[in-house]
Amino acid sequence: MINLGIIGYGYWGPNVARNFNLCKDAHLASICDFDESRLRLAKSTYPFIKGYSDPKDLITSDDIQAVAIVTPVFTHYELAKAALENGKHIFMEKPFTSNAGQAEELINLAHKKGLLIMVDHTFLFTGAVKKIREILDSQELGSLFFYDSTRVNLGLFQHDINVVWDLAPHDFSIMNYLINKNPVTISAHGTEHFGTGLEDVAYIAAHFDNGFIAHFHCNWLSPVKIRKTLISGDKKMLVWDDLESDEKIKIYDRGVEFRNREEIQKPLSKNRERIRELLVSYRSGDMYAPRVRDTEALKVEAEYFLDCIKNRVHPFNDGEAGLKVVRMLEATDKSLKNGGEKTKI
Amino acid sequence: MINLGIIGYGYWGPNVARNFNLCKDAHLASICDFDESRLRLAKSTYPFIKGYSDPKDLITSDDIQAVAIVTPVFTHYELAKAALENGKHIFMEKPFTSNAGQAEELINLAHKKGLLIMVDHTFLFTGAVKKIREILDSQELGSLFFYDSTRVNLGLFQHDINVVWDLAPHDFSIMNYLINKNPVTISAHGTEHFGTGLEDVAYIAAHFDNGFIAHFHCNWLSPVKIRKTLISGDKKMLVWDDLESDEKIKIYDRGVEFRNREEIQKPLSKNRERIRELLVSYRSGDMYAPRVRDTEALKVEAEYFLDCIKNRVHPFNDGEAGLKVVRMLEATDKSLKNGGEKTKI
Amino acid sequence: MINLGIIGYGYWGPNVARNFNLCKDAHLASICDFDESRLRLAKSTYPFIKGYSDPKDLITSDDIQAVAIVTPVFTHYELAKAALENGKHIFMEKPFTSNAGQAEELINLAHKKGLLIMVDHTFLFTGAVKKIREILDSQELGSLFFYDSTRVNLGLFQHDINVVWDLAPHDFSIMNYLINKNPVTISAHGTEHFGTGLEDVAYIAAHFDNGFIAHFHCNWLSPVKIRKTLISGDKKMLVWDDLESDEKIKIYDRGVEFRNREEIQKPLSKNRERIRELLVSYRSGDMYAPRVRDTEALKVEAEYFLDCIKNRVHPFNDGEAGLKVVRMLEATDKSLKNGGEKTKI
Amino acid sequence: MINLGIIGYGYWGPNVARNFNLCKDAHLASICDFDESRLRLAKSTYPFIKGYSDPKDLITSDDIQAVAIVTPVFTHYELAKAALENGKHIFMEKPFTSNAGQAEELINLAHKKGLLIMVDHTFLFTGAVKKIREILDSQELGSLFFYDSTRVNLGLFQHDINVVWDLAPHDFSIMNYLINKNPVTISAHGTEHFGTGLEDVAYIAAHFDNGFIAHFHCNWLSPVKIRKTLISGDKKMLVWDDLESDEKIKIYDRGVEFRNREEIQKPLSKNRERIRELLVSYRSGDMYAPRVRDTEALKVEAEYFLDCIKNRVHPFNDGEAGLKVVRMLEATDKSLKNGGEKTKI
Repeated sequence: MINLGIIGYGYWGPNVARNFNLCKDAHLASICDFDESRLRLAKSTYPFIKGYSDPKDLITSDDIQAVAIVTPVFTHYELAKAALENGKHIFMEKPFTSNAGQAEELINLAHKKGLLIMVDHTFLFTGAVKKIREILDSQELGSLFFYDSTRVNLGLFQHDINVVWDLAPHDFSIMNYLINKNPVTISAHGTEHFGTGLEDVAYIAAHFDNGFIAHFHCNWLSPVKIRKTLISGDKKMLVWDDLESDEKIKIYDRGVEFRNREEIQKPLSKNRERIRELLVSYRSGDMYAPRVRDTEALKVEAEYFLDCIKNRVHPFNDGEAGLKVVRMLEATDKSLKNGGEKTKI
Repeated sequence: MINLGIIGYGYWGPNVARNFNLCKDAHLASICDFDESRLRLAKSTYPFIKGYSDPKDLITSDDIQAVAIVTPVFTHYELAKAALENGKHIFMEKPFTSNAGQAEELINLAHKKGLLIMVDHTFLFTGAVKKIREILDSQELGSLFFYDSTRVNLGLFQHDINVVWDLAPHDFSIMNYLINKNPVTISAHGTEHFGTGLEDVAYIAAHFDNGFIAHFHCNWLSPVKIRKTLISGDKKMLVWDDLESDEKIKIYDRGVEFRNREEIQKPLSKNRERIRELLVSYRSGDMYAPRVRDTEALKVEAEYFLDCIKNRVHPFNDGEAGLKVVRMLEATDKSLKNGGEKTKI
Repeated sequence: MINLGIIGYGYWGPNVARNFNLCKDAHLASICDFDESRLRLAKSTYPFIKGYSDPKDLITSDDIQAVAIVTPVFTHYELAKAALENGKHIFMEKPFTSNAGQAEELINLAHKKGLLIMVDHTFLFTGAVKKIREILDSQELGSLFFYDSTRVNLGLFQHDINVVWDLAPHDFSIMNYLINKNPVTISAHGTEHFGTGLEDVAYIAAHFDNGFIAHFHCNWLSPVKIRKTLISGDKKMLVWDDLESDEKIKIYDRGVEFRNREEIQKPLSKNRERIRELLVSYRSGDMYAPRVRDTEALKVEAEYFLDCIKNRVHPFNDGEAGLKVVRMLEATDKSLKNGGEKTKI
Repeated sequence: MINLGIIGYGYWGPNVARNFNLCKDAHLASICDFDESRLRLAKSTYPFIKGYSDPKDLITSDDIQAVAIVTPVFTHYELAKAALENGKHIFMEKPFTSNAGQAEELINLAHKKGLLIMVDHTFLFTGAVKKIREILDSQELGSLFFYDSTRVNLGLFQHDINVVWDLAPHDFSIMNYLINKNPVTISAHGTEHFGTGLEDVAYIAAHFDNGFIAHFHCNWLSPVKIRKTLISGDKKMLVWDDLESDEKIKIYDRGVEFRNREEIQKPLSKNRERIRELLVSYRSGDMYAPRVRDTEALKVEAEYFLDCIKNRVHPFNDGEAGLKVVRMLEATDKSLKNGGEKTKI
């Protein structure tokens, strides 16, 4: 049994509390929120917890082994550092930290103390992402062409971060988990419309060594909600539409075939235009939509957190994974500020 | 009655021929194609035409006043120049020319000769684009936030041009027609997968003076076909899905409202996160899908071409409009070659 | 404050409990379930309630004024009768009773005792049904042509009732609420596939005096879930797709126009076929999707129940409304048993 | 080479002419239409044909071996009889005849004369129907539960026939082709709204010996176009949406499983309701959408007609197949007139 405290009972905190409370191996011991009304709600839902309004009190209490930090990102570093120094494992809301330096420091501290950091990239625990990972691991798509993600809707405007820090952590962490490649540079374009200095629309291109490209569209000002990812390979192509209830993932047996690459790479001449058709052809076969389990991702993740602590296993969504995402966010921000300049991650 | 000759009877030529042949004011006089089998097909469909295999013969013939040039882009300049020099009006396949210099020269030549150039940006004559223009002109959307266009599918690979020159002329000409703004710079990212040196995936951001941003995704390697444009304003938001048969255009009465901009622009403090909700709100009202006429765009355009000649009217899709698109294509190419560098149009 | 007891804590009971518990004017006093594990769940969720395993104990207790009966239909009559005799208002799960005689008896009993019966036709309290009712009341659709409803999916198989008694109460109550017409006869066709004697597929036609027709397709064996209702009028036509998240209701400005009815009603002659086009034409205008409120229907209904008790108002979804549905269900069953014979309601 | 004449150049005739004209083995010899403007159109499109305004002249001409009759149904019998008596094979527009007696007479006459009758049920030659037939033949769906078809739209109103004779021939012929079962009786409900005596909305249930049921919804007054067929089996389930461009056919690996049929068939007792869940379960696996060829069906059918003549093969869409459809139409009409009475086919 692991005793757990939660800091932050705003939008996401109640979900974290509910799911840990459902885990056999966890005891929800304490919840902290500086807002009295939120704390009252927490206590009425879980009458057995200790309630705190100062996180320090929760962090320094002896009756917990782990802390879930579910607060705005600008508070992460300080809270996590205090928790680690007090010997607690951390379950940390995404994004991990406000900058890479903070993340590195926390990772080192956790390492020194023999403690565990898990960054809550919840999507990695959905049935859809698990299934796509399986498909990619099986090499069914062949060699990958590109990765394209669209995550747009109307709102939610965060006050303290731009649309990139709000939405892209999902997409960056998902891509990092799905494909075994390291982006080298990022170029990003965006704009903001309300004088806050915080972008509400952003287009992000991530470049890889081998010509592979990934692109992300994050947007708070779209009239329609879109959650669509295309992953295209030379054998098959995949579309993940997270808003579909039944057929989230579709794998298309489609592709391009080149009968004669040398021929096609020759320089242009007057009558070559119609030769093209002889050289390129498109394959169009069946499509299938694999069944996707619809267990609650956060529940699976919470259990995985507890398992990792119990069995002293290093989680795959650890501090390093969180740091990689933060580095991409930082590079994106830097590129945004510099007019889209290609920025090293 | 205007006598017309057509050069090029490949993929698009037959459509041009068919539609001009349906116009009361036009007489389809001659067709030219260097490929014998295509020429035979043209003659069997229109037994009354003169057939040529050398464009020079068509261009220099006395019995026509106008020439439709429906050939690959690298041939445009030469053919158009010869046609203008021989006193013919030009209906020119998009993109106008291979570079801006050629376009400028042709525009000057036409001006000197008192001849007309129309660039075949067919989409501008669809019911959908006409309707969107009406909506935008009425200021129904309010002040515009962004313009986002996705045009992706599997193939068609052109041999002599990249995906940008193949697909973006549609989107650039549509945007230029729809919104009364001039992009200043372009940043583009893309990649190619078959050793041809011609990009098959491209992401293009166009920047405007006032923070407005437009983005275009052109792609020959997508398993699914998408033709979707979002135009978002502070009053309403519009989605155009050209693959919908019935409801191509949807106008959403949705928006963001800021109750107190000054407040929201203040610096961050610990307990401000929850204040946000008091300041920002989202409006969600009705949606409507206006009826869109489904006349054949090319027919309307052909008639407009003839009208412009008869009435000595300058068409809106003239050489200048074509040149503006070519300049954007050139800037895109340059940015692609320079790693996404912001490039002046 | 009205004290309320709930009998039945199976599939739907927890929703009823949760929503009444959220009402300011209600106090959730007691819950009864003969299954110990369900009762334990109820008590752990609402530690303050009295728990019973025998409904009689709940019904005869003095501390409640109203009872929600959320049990299988074959138990409704007995439980409701006991509750009314003990002076309790009733909130009754749909369908009201197993037959019309029971319903009439309960209505009379309630009348005599001055008590209130509300039948839980939850759909009537959704934003979508409220909005459609508004549209129909405004005469926007003109004179109605037909009403067509499809409610199909895979499962849920009820053990004690057929697909008609499971699904059609929704559609019958919705139609009765929406349109001001009384069906006179019903013809139904169906079949069953598992030797239970309970139909799992049913097609139901309801006939009205004036040629108006309503049709219902209820099905437990469909691979896809469909929840679609068409209501067609001579001015406009409406489609309600309850599975759409954003655009549940669409109103089409479409119709048929007859230029000359007399002409069209003349007998046939050889060359009349092509005259038709001169006489009939189709109108195709805009479509709009009104905004639909997405409050939880059961919450609204629970509050309405309490209001009706407090203010001694007769609810519109009263025993009579429930009886009307039961009569339609009985006629459907009878028609099913008699090979689709037109059966008086 | 088979010389062919076509009678009727209205809505469908031009398609028949175009496709036979594309067949290597056919020579389009003559076209007949009593409407001069239609005949003129035919001649301008096919300058080489003989044009007739009286069908008798075409039918009695010596230069043709086959006649395509593409006229309203009430003329079919007379024209076909004359054609057969003059030794011509017949390609007949659907529905075959106005009544079963006529169909039988024509079948006998053709048999006596050694001539061939093909009824133009074009849908049977689409890639979609061919693919579904393959799937059903492979027993992939298992034992079939039901067949459900919806074919609704706004218009086209026929002047001389009701919606059943207009639309149901498609669905009846498709079902007859797809499943190897004979419907025994039909019950139909419908209504008409314009005083023509011709139903514009119809619901048709076809009953089979073994409890299998088929249902058809035909409607000229629907605001939206629907072309959807569900075929449900105990192993898998199929949905055919003919309006989908890419994924017309979807096969769902879904089903119902009964762990203990005997148990489930026992009579009801108080606490059995929750036992159900132990007995029934639903299987939900992958879905796949097989590739469907998109050749023009009428072209394939025209070639098949010529092949059958050349090789003296009996077509599967012969007079008997046409007669079976006419018998179902007659039974439907009779049931409609008799208030939905179950009517023998």
